[in-house]
Amino acid sequence: MSVAMEEEEQVLTVHKTDSATILILLGILLLTILTIWLFKHRRLRFVHESGLSMIYGMIVGMVIRYGSSASTETPEVMLTGNRTFHAFQPPSSLILNLGPDENSTEKTHSLKYNLWGIVNENEQMAPIVRAVTFDPEFFFNIMLPFIIFEAGYSMKRRHFFRNFGAIMTYAFIGTTISCCVVGGIMYGLTRLMEIKFSLNDCFFFGAIISATDPVTVLAIFSDLKVDVDLFAFVFGESVLNDAVAIVLSESVETYGQYASTGFSANAFFKSLGSFVGIFAGAFAIGAFIGCLTAVISKFTKIRDFPLLETALFFLMSYSTFQAAEAAGLTGIVAVLFCGITQAHYTFNNLSLESKQRTKQLFELTNFLAENFVFLYVGVSIFTFHAQKWHAGFILSTFLAIIVARFCNIYPLSLLLNLGRRKKIKSSFMNMMMFSGLRGAIAFALSIRNTSSEARRLMVSSTMMVVLVTVVICGGFTTPMLQWLQIRVGVEEDQEGATDGSSIRTGGSTIEISQVKKPRDAKAWLVAQWHSFDVRFMKPFLTNCRPTLMETSPACCMPLARLLTTDEQLQGSDPTKDADSDIDMIIDHRELSIGEDTISTVSQTKPYTSTEPASQAYRDDCASGDLGMGQREDHLNVRVNLPGPQGHRL
Amino acid sequence: MSVAMEEEEQVLTVHKTDSATILILLGILLLTILTIWLFKHRRLRFVHESGLSMIYGMIVGMVIRYGSSASTETPEVMLTGNRTFHAFQPPSSLILNLGPDENSTEKTHSLKYNLWGIVNENEQMAPIVRAVTFDPEFFFNIMLPFIIFEAGYSMKRRHFFRNFGAIMTYAFIGTTISCCVVGGIMYGLTRLMEIKFSLNDCFFFGAIISATDPVTVLAIFSDLKVDVDLFAFVFGESVLNDAVAIVLSESVETYGQYASTGFSANAFFKSLGSFVGIFAGAFAIGAFIGCLTAVISKFTKIRDFPLLETALFFLMSYSTFQAAEAAGLTGIVAVLFCGITQAHYTFNNLSLESKQRTKQLFELTNFLAENFVFLYVGVSIFTFHAQKWHAGFILSTFLAIIVARFCNIYPLSLLLNLGRRKKIKSSFMNMMMFSGLRGAIAFALSIRNTSSEARRLMVSSTMMVVLVTVVICGGFTTPMLQWLQIRVGVEEDQEGATDGSSIRTGGSTIEISQVKKPRDAKAWLVAQWHSFDVRFMKPFLTNCRPTLMETSPACCMPLARLLTTDEQLQGSDPTKDADSDIDMIIDHRELSIGEDTISTVSQTKPYTSTEPASQAYRDDCASGDLGMGQREDHLNVRVNLPGPQGHRL
Repeated sequence: MSVAMEEEEQVLTVHKTDSATILILLGILLLTILTIWLFKHRRLRFVHESGLSMIYGMIVGMVIRYGSSASTETPEVMLTGNRTFHAFQPPSSLILNLGPDENSTEKTHSLKYNLWGIVNENEQMAPIVRAVTFDPEFFFNIMLPFIIFEAGYSMKRRHFFRNFGAIMTYAFIGTTISCCVVGGIMYGLTRLMEIKFSLNDCFFFGAIISATDPVTVLAIFSDLKVDVDLFAFVFGESVLNDAVAIVLSESVETYGQYASTGFSANAFFKSLGSFVGIFAGAFAIGAFIGCLTAVISKFTKIRDFPLLETALFFLMSYSTFQAAEAAGLTGIVAVLFCGITQAHYTFNNLSLESKQRTKQLFELTNFLAENFVFLYVGVSIFTFHAQKWHAGFILSTFLAIIVARFCNIYPLSLLLNLGRRKKIKSSFMNMMMFSGLRGAIAFALSIRNTSSEARRLMVSSTMMVVLVTVVICGGFTTPMLQWLQIRVGVEEDQEGATDGSSIRTGGSTIEISQVKKPRDAKAWLVAQWHSFDVRFMKPFLTNCRPTLMETSPACCMPLARLLTTDEQLQGSDPTKDADSDIDMIIDHRELSIGEDTISTVSQTKPYTSTEPASQAYRDDCASGDLGMGQREDHLNVRVNLPGPQGHRL
Repeated sequence: MSVAMEEEEQVLTVHKTDSATILILLGILLLTILTIWLFKHRRLRFVHESGLSMIYGMIVGMVIRYGSSASTETPEVMLTGNRTFHAFQPPSSLILNLGPDENSTEKTHSLKYNLWGIVNENEQMAPIVRAVTFDPEFFFNIMLPFIIFEAGYSMKRRHFFRNFGAIMTYAFIGTTISCCVVGGIMYGLTRLMEIKFSLNDCFFFGAIISATDPVTVLAIFSDLKVDVDLFAFVFGESVLNDAVAIVLSESVETYGQYASTGFSANAFFKSLGSFVGIFAGAFAIGAFIGCLTAVISKFTKIRDFPLLETALFFLMSYSTFQAAEAAGLTGIVAVLFCGITQAHYTFNNLSLESKQRTKQLFELTNFLAENFVFLYVGVSIFTFHAQKWHAGFILSTFLAIIVARFCNIYPLSLLLNLGRRKKIKSSFMNMMMFSGLRGAIAFALSIRNTSSEARRLMVSSTMMVVLVTVVICGGFTTPMLQWLQIRVGVEEDQEGATDGSSIRTGGSTIEISQVKKPRDAKAWLVAQWHSFDVRFMKPFLTNCRPTLMETSPACCMPLARLLTTDEQLQGSDPTKDADSDIDMIIDHRELSIGEDTISTVSQTKPYTSTEPASQAYRDDCASGDLGMGQREDHLNVRVNLPGPQGHRL
């Protein structure tokens, strides 16, 4: 065989191995799906699907690791480069010039090799192990955006915003506390165990291990219809805290670049600046692209072609991620806010078919991505090339995260209770303490860079934390809920109806400002935003009533007319009046069946200008209730309630 | 900065460039979608979306090529390997050992580089050009499976099978003729131009350039509701001929490996064997996994959870591709047959929601993949690193494909007309001659391997052929239809109703065998399969009536009972009685609105065992009409016909 043919053979072998690997992973995924179905069918709840994926992944990883020999493929070639040729940076690709081939008529053969990553020295891997070991970027670019976007897109915004203050406290202050506590404990314990682990490494580890996972516990909460406030706490915290942990870890790295040893105020403020900058930038990009999609879907008639509309929606959402990454920001944070914006504005403009399509599409991609990630975590425990196991370090990590979680939840909850009318119960605190599972984000952050010894310790430790928390805490969620006597089977908003504060504030600022409560300043801010949203953002970005012509001052009338579509003026399309937030609540994980009728019940009659404006707001775009704990639900949510509270329209 | 940090920086830069690239591509895709919408909105038809994607791609490719400098990223490093270290094969990856870093405490830094491919020597690319130049495997593993699966899944099987013989003739014999004619002409012309191009290269080129593209013309046919038989010819030919061209090109390569110079009978039969083997193997894998999905979806109650069901369906279909590739066969061919099997059997078992979900999902992925492929073809014309331009070669190619298409369509059509009752009109032949567009498959096959000079000539030539045929032939399809006076606006099956041969054969062999026609032998074979399908395959694999208990001999009763589900016995679920083929016809490209009611009209009454079996077959799973030109449609298709032929139930 000629050399050219050898090279083709080699490319073919690599290709076959890759296919076999993907096939194996697909096989496990299929097995997981069938097992999930069996569990759902038999109503078993002791292992959740994420735990299941991980366990199956581990089994396969073990087989691959110990069952395959290292010598079936061409061994890797070691080159000893000298440092001169990359005076500043290592090369991004290597060209292997193989010289002229005597048998063939062609001159030279050059093979190109692309930079894959930094590896442990002298490591020989079997080809299948090599193939199973994906690029960490694969997670960040393909899997995570779907998971996080779906989180934002399907967010129960009503409950989320009702507990906005508490969630922000847990997510921002709580995660920072957790990061510091873990960092501190790890610093102390690594000194004791004499592991090389710099202070910067400690805080970096603290940041990545503080990202809690929204998948497992929430699926169970959703199944059991747990108390909506508890749901909002756990969901909001885990979604936002992923974003916080990512940005925090990047800030710690930034800090490390400016201050190599000891504390430096300059570096500290620079990293603080980077934290704020990344967060604000990502928020801005996400919100901007979300609004842009809303504008496009409002002012073009693309909704006549649902396929094009869905494609547009999908591509815009995905390009948010890439835009943020290309700008050097964090794509995942941007995608989260993009998802929220899309659900809040764009969703109202979509055709009925596209609403369904987008929801189902993201539900499916999210489901597949989630299971794939956990599966991959399982496989990696055995096949990942760069982890370094150290029992003492792993035990220290568990100790650190338990203490950190404790220092996060209880003090903050007690602090929040000082200001809250509706106190956070101690059973909720215990449950939140228990729900601190670690998942995809922590794992992905840890494998992203494994260049140093310290980083490799982090990888193994994070793997164990993910495995143990998902399988054990995930498995014991249901018993824990029973043990803590937390109400399950709560219908949407029944919660709100049972406590005494059912003051109907509608949607307008006037009424809100009449409700004088202790935290007026914050309430005022939120109410301002809410009013702005209802009066300008929603009329501008969606086809909902009221129109800009009704809400803007008389001087801006020509502009307002320009920005109002005919559909909006006619207000005849019933699909546009449906409350998008309720839609989201209904569809989430296909559970709340029986509420499907709400959206038709809450259809408003064609708007007549004799009605007072505040009434119109209440009927129409009711999804923007950006309020707090003491704010109450809107008229049209009550319609379908079962039991004595229901039907008090 | 320490070395570790430099490496991190480098990884980060690569990452940012990648993101920027993806963002650019997403941007063009979005622009294409908006332009498509505008064209559809304004009812312009002179440029089709695939041509549009390609033109936009070319513009961007040009900007990237000439607008970016080659020196912003670390240059590639050239290594001169000596041939001893890879005695048999080139290494699959290189490890660059950078030696100890003086500033850091760690021992060594090793960078890993993975084999990317064979490149042109001494080529410097700007980083953005490098990033835009995707791996050809990306097409084969990610894009093409979706396009081809959708083709199989949404195939109008009724019309396809009615013209089965003709389609197979065009696809198999026609493509082989085309391959030989192109090969011969290119051999002659390259000798004249003194280009180094071996005989084997000629036939390889003939094979890859013979793959016609089903995308552009069919979208227009579909829009205009062109004559169903013509649609079936063009669709069937282009879908199957992709498969034939792929396998053919692989066979030619196999031939080349065994016979380095001149003709060798041994090598010829080996490559013929490889052709048959690959085709049969791929068919077997595709059909098997399709049937397996049908069995799973029938015997588990997974349809209670549409999300899981859709995920299962999706993963099974995708794993077909990987299974075939891992087995060394052709994934695309397997996926095509898997799609057909899924549509024929599994589709009947899905829940109503999953039917919708899967159709919409594959429609979307197909749409995105198609546009992306054409976009990428456009970009590659400027950025692909390995093409070699030669005007004479390109002109020869155009001459060769025109002659080859001529030798394919006209002789075969005339030959077919000898045996056909319903002759292929000359206007149809002219239109088929004109519809020989080249697209994604030809392009992907050509860039898959660019190791030799000859291959690089093929790449540039294929690019030009794809560009010219898609933009020009695609753009002139509508005028051409008018010019050839081919009927458009034909309703489904109106065609069948207007010709005289409306003998209702139902589904059973007895009736078919009574229809004595010239081609009895073939009719008998097809009828045998049809009978087997209706009596055993459908009852076993789907929830359709009749059940196996009704069709199998008495001795197999216990087994038959075991393989019959309760749903099937009750036959109460209306969704299962709907004719899946009609569903497919309706949904294809969202066009044939107004026929939606067929599926409910054709619902059968609950089966009572007093009815004769043949009657039951006719009512129930009528989609399996695996007949030829003279076979007629089933009872339940007629229901909805407009005009005097309609309503003769």
